[in-house]
Amino acid sequence: MSVTVVGSIAFDAVKTPSGSRDRLLGGAATHFSLAASFFDEVRPVGPVGDDFGPDDLATLQTRGTITDDVEHVPGGKTFFWAGEYHDNLNRRETLQTSLNVFEDFQPKLSPAAQDCDVLFLANIQPDLQLGVREQCANARFVAMDSMDFWINSAREALERTIRAVDCLILNDEELEQLTGQPTTVAAAQELLGWGLKAVVSKHGKYGAALFTEEDVFSLPAYPLENVVDPTGAGDSFAGGFVGYVAAQRDEPLGHELFKRAMAYGTALASFNVEEFGTERVTRLTTDEISERVNDLHRMTQFDLAPLTLRG
Amino acid sequence: MSVTVVGSIAFDAVKTPSGSRDRLLGGAATHFSLAASFFDEVRPVGPVGDDFGPDDLATLQTRGTITDDVEHVPGGKTFFWAGEYHDNLNRRETLQTSLNVFEDFQPKLSPAAQDCDVLFLANIQPDLQLGVREQCANARFVAMDSMDFWINSAREALERTIRAVDCLILNDEELEQLTGQPTTVAAAQELLGWGLKAVVSKHGKYGAALFTEEDVFSLPAYPLENVVDPTGAGDSFAGGFVGYVAAQRDEPLGHELFKRAMAYGTALASFNVEEFGTERVTRLTTDEISERVNDLHRMTQFDLAPLTLRG
Repeated sequence: MSVTVVGSIAFDAVKTPSGSRDRLLGGAATHFSLAASFFDEVRPVGPVGDDFGPDDLATLQTRGTITDDVEHVPGGKTFFWAGEYHDNLNRRETLQTSLNVFEDFQPKLSPAAQDCDVLFLANIQPDLQLGVREQCANARFVAMDSMDFWINSAREALERTIRAVDCLILNDEELEQLTGQPTTVAAAQELLGWGLKAVVSKHGKYGAALFTEEDVFSLPAYPLENVVDPTGAGDSFAGGFVGYVAAQRDEPLGHELFKRAMAYGTALASFNVEEFGTERVTRLTTDEISERVNDLHRMTQFDLAPLTLRG
Repeated sequence: MSVTVVGSIAFDAVKTPSGSRDRLLGGAATHFSLAASFFDEVRPVGPVGDDFGPDDLATLQTRGTITDDVEHVPGGKTFFWAGEYHDNLNRRETLQTSLNVFEDFQPKLSPAAQDCDVLFLANIQPDLQLGVREQCANARFVAMDSMDFWINSAREALERTIRAVDCLILNDEELEQLTGQPTTVAAAQELLGWGLKAVVSKHGKYGAALFTEEDVFSLPAYPLENVVDPTGAGDSFAGGFVGYVAAQRDEPLGHELFKRAMAYGTALASFNVEEFGTERVTRLTTDEISERVNDLHRMTQFDLAPLTLRG
């Protein structure tokens, strides 16, 4: 049993108020894999170039992640992104995007990757996502991400793909943009009508909400005194969320399971942003995760005390 | 025992994607009073002009609110604000602000208003807030709001005032701006060092967080399918929060009490935005509030299920 993730493997140059780094291992599949590896065996699928070294591969292999489906494109360069965070990390400016080997990426999954129990389609072109989804016909649970660019440029393909998965994980504004609905709740209700089992709305530093046919669940982000680098937070969340679902093989895919998955996703995302790139999650321990999930539980619980209100 | 609130009583002209209204009863003291009146007897203190009619006064008196300290300024006009909401209500544009009678407002509290059990200082000039705070020397709990304008133009007065109250309720970005700290958590920690018992960070449609010396608590906003008019949400939150504290006379002012107050504040704010101005909260029922607090409890609770993570 394993988790397959298809998406970018990248080098990032990042500047934040805490400092800057010229070359960090990054990309959606990387951040997802590092988070999900706490829960299950992970197989990332994505292309890299000649500049992708043994150290990078070793990082990706943290906690037993299998890199057989990391495709080395001879003569190519790895996807490169450079960005800077402003205004207390609220605003991100992209300085450079060089797709490189990612530009002509056609996901070809090994039989082992196709035979996954759980599949995550990170943010790539929707038709490619659908192709991968069809290669993994036996997956018990399929979740996907996307972005405003595809909503604007490939809406029909995106809708086809969403209708073929179980769970959509997207920013709240993208959910509203995708459906044309004025609120996240209305957007999620419409999307559940497309056949999704769950819609997860990401709210950046404010947390995330879960929508199923059964109920709504909302969880704030873990309160951090110091945030160093927000890059990859969303993919770390997805890794924790999807990884948790993968680890609970015997539990039905329902609201109660997804609620707990939200807590693990939130915990993993909070660690990811504490240091640059993959630094924090690479050396994260299982005890630290459990402690943070417990903290999150305590910090969100309140008692219902009876009170007579004035009418 | 009663709650005194000092702040604006206004007429608002509001345009939102749901429609527009030319003249709504509004202002911080109004929204606060309507919310807090579910919990205790409320005395709003603020000036109005000749245009403030019997219907407006009757609305303010909902659920027994005592308007003896609403000061009629002969020949004057009531504070007027006009604004428009854009981008799915995320962005507010002020079209007109006419302070009118509010410009020369010097709060003079009646003995009954001074004798309050709990005091809320809505967003007015910090020295005026401090003067009111000193008039209510016996108040058991004093909370205050402010805004970026005072942070920029009257920082020293604002700090003096904050150091004289128990609880600061502010937007997260304003907390960061006030302290120069890069995160809300760091800002709240610094402000607790000023002697506050509680710092409440408001996150608009994403919810709010509570910081005390004891712990952190975070609560998402109630998920609404339809939002009509966000005006006054923050003051309705404050009314629910401060009102709840006022109603729990025998409980120590601590984290557990404030956590439950957060739930009532969140519930009241969510009702406020469902219709224009004061329309929804005026005819709100106690059962509806209890039901929403119960919903909020259910929508934020998750189980801690033991899980063996991969190390």
